[in-house]
Amino acid sequence: MIATTHGDQEGWFSDDEFAEIRRKVPMLYVQAIPVQTDEFGQVTHIGLMMRANDDGNIVRSIVSGRVMYGEVIHAALLRHIENDLGPLTLPSLPQSAHPFTVTQYFPTPQPTGFVDERQHAVSLGYIVPIKGEVEPRKAALEFNWFEPKEIVTSKMFEEMDDSQGLVIYQALAHMGIFS
Amino acid sequence: MIATTHGDQEGWFSDDEFAEIRRKVPMLYVQAIPVQTDEFGQVTHIGLMMRANDDGNIVRSIVSGRVMYGEVIHAALLRHIENDLGPLTLPSLPQSAHPFTVTQYFPTPQPTGFVDERQHAVSLGYIVPIKGEVEPRKAALEFNWFEPKEIVTSKMFEEMDDSQGLVIYQALAHMGIFS
Amino acid sequence: MIATTHGDQEGWFSDDEFAEIRRKVPMLYVQAIPVQTDEFGQVTHIGLMMRANDDGNIVRSIVSGRVMYGEVIHAALLRHIENDLGPLTLPSLPQSAHPFTVTQYFPTPQPTGFVDERQHAVSLGYIVPIKGEVEPRKAALEFNWFEPKEIVTSKMFEEMDDSQGLVIYQALAHMGIFS
Amino acid sequence: MIATTHGDQEGWFSDDEFAEIRRKVPMLYVQAIPVQTDEFGQVTHIGLMMRANDDGNIVRSIVSGRVMYGEVIHAALLRHIENDLGPLTLPSLPQSAHPFTVTQYFPTPQPTGFVDERQHAVSLGYIVPIKGEVEPRKAALEFNWFEPKEIVTSKMFEEMDDSQGLVIYQALAHMGIFS
Repeated sequence: MIATTHGDQEGWFSDDEFAEIRRKVPMLYVQAIPVQTDEFGQVTHIGLMMRANDDGNIVRSIVSGRVMYGEVIHAALLRHIENDLGPLTLPSLPQSAHPFTVTQYFPTPQPTGFVDERQHAVSLGYIVPIKGEVEPRKAALEFNWFEPKEIVTSKMFEEMDDSQGLVIYQALAHMGIFS
Repeated sequence: MIATTHGDQEGWFSDDEFAEIRRKVPMLYVQAIPVQTDEFGQVTHIGLMMRANDDGNIVRSIVSGRVMYGEVIHAALLRHIENDLGPLTLPSLPQSAHPFTVTQYFPTPQPTGFVDERQHAVSLGYIVPIKGEVEPRKAALEFNWFEPKEIVTSKMFEEMDDSQGLVIYQALAHMGIFS
Repeated sequence: MIATTHGDQEGWFSDDEFAEIRRKVPMLYVQAIPVQTDEFGQVTHIGLMMRANDDGNIVRSIVSGRVMYGEVIHAALLRHIENDLGPLTLPSLPQSAHPFTVTQYFPTPQPTGFVDERQHAVSLGYIVPIKGEVEPRKAALEFNWFEPKEIVTSKMFEEMDDSQGLVIYQALAHMGIFS
Repeated sequence: MIATTHGDQEGWFSDDEFAEIRRKVPMLYVQAIPVQTDEFGQVTHIGLMMRANDDGNIVRSIVSGRVMYGEVIHAALLRHIENDLGPLTLPSLPQSAHPFTVTQYFPTPQPTGFVDERQHAVSLGYIVPIKGEVEPRKAALEFNWFEPKEIVTSKMFEEMDDSQGLVIYQALAHMGIFS
């Protein structure tokens, strides 16, 4: 699985061409919330990166990226995790393509409240336990583990990119974590 | 929500342009399995259309279609149901965008076993109770209700388009229906 | 399906006997969040009852109750909805027994944060669209529809019984409703 | 978390007492399908035990057992996995109590098709990746890993206990594995 900016497996295209395509059809994305767990599978920590967004602001972010032509969802998940967090994370990818949430990003706050100014993107979300080492790289300037309660009680949701704070909120609710 | 062949809400494109796009990025689809239920919500019948596929063969089919640029998943579901089954179906659309299955279609039998020769498509599947009247139209030549056991014990899975028989198999397993 | 306080389908037992049983094994419950939806299936209103809890306080509550011996989950859901909201609600019960959440209530705040002083109960949660009329009865003193944002921005979560506010919070997150 | 036959965490009871209780209220169970996965999370093998059922027949079986009073679902899962497969399995327990299926066992083939002659049991099902070593013990006479296609094409479903073959069928459908 070769990772590239805009080239998919059966055909490359230029930045201009991609800019055109992403204004014409919805883009398929995956997003992964990196977590650490105890022996019972319960989440003890959630991992967030720091990265610069398109406006040049430093924002916190989960792992997120496009599914390429010809790429299965699990390969896209693994590729984006390796791209951002390095090759030694030993992620436990899900057994099924069934996401814990489907997030619909639009260029405007309506109709869903999830905003991505660049495009209409539909992102399948997965919670991914990380057993190995994280070495943030490429776009990821930094990476930190937080206890769920640190995230809930802090302003961290507001520092996040592209409404991703709401996705973490959904993940916590899905896992029954409230404090 | 205007239904068109290839034009999305913010920009129209020609058939040629669309043929190009769908070889470059995965297409986002929704698929709906029309069902009738008893008072307990249990499925008593599953609805299948007859339609001609791209090869000119008559195949059985569930409701399936592309999500357009700018269109939320629920609007795409409703649009395709109305397009195929008419305006009087009174569908009970799901409260969440959470699909019961995510189907990954590729032009070749590998890697998933789900085949769509035209494209790489990722389709979010929903089970949709129909309370009203079905009037098959446009591509839908005919529509019939079947008891689950008729589908399971017949060769109907083999007459279906684009590996959709497997999606029904998944829906039945999800609902705990085995005969 | 006959509704009774403590008698199950294959054998009756006294209040004392039941008090004994519920301190020995986990009790299986179902809980239903009554909702109203628009044509796209999106939730416009959430329904809450007022009822007196075991301490004599008036609390807000979703529909909740035990699954009896010999009773399938869907029958228990329908029985409790009819018991609390009357026979004319025309509920759209789910097609699958797959809950949107599993809530584990314990007599103490630990280990889950969900408290039911009477017992250890595991409750399967479902979102149930109501198309008909609600006539609160028996334990249900009153019933009102609220917009999701009224619930989120008010203190309503705090007036709720048995940590049920958290269940509504989970339902809203599951449906992608944030305001 | 102490594993015992019939005693729960807050109070012990005799076999006779338990025989009585399980004819009066539904029993809450968990069931785990042990799997091995590749680096993408895709299931390569499914693990089945051999054990003697109540009739003295040798049957194939997944991990299954009761949730005790006071015990959270994840602790029950871990306890039953250790009881049957030994202490070195290094299971990846799920992050959420959300099951992939809810199975309703009744003493008779009606109403669900899932039969447990001893009781009415509702079992929450989870797919559990195993990274460590399996040492079958106690009731587990033997344990073997099978490729999904071996299970699908063989008569193995018929050798299974308590309709558990249907649960594996549901798991395979959930994961999108068909051969």
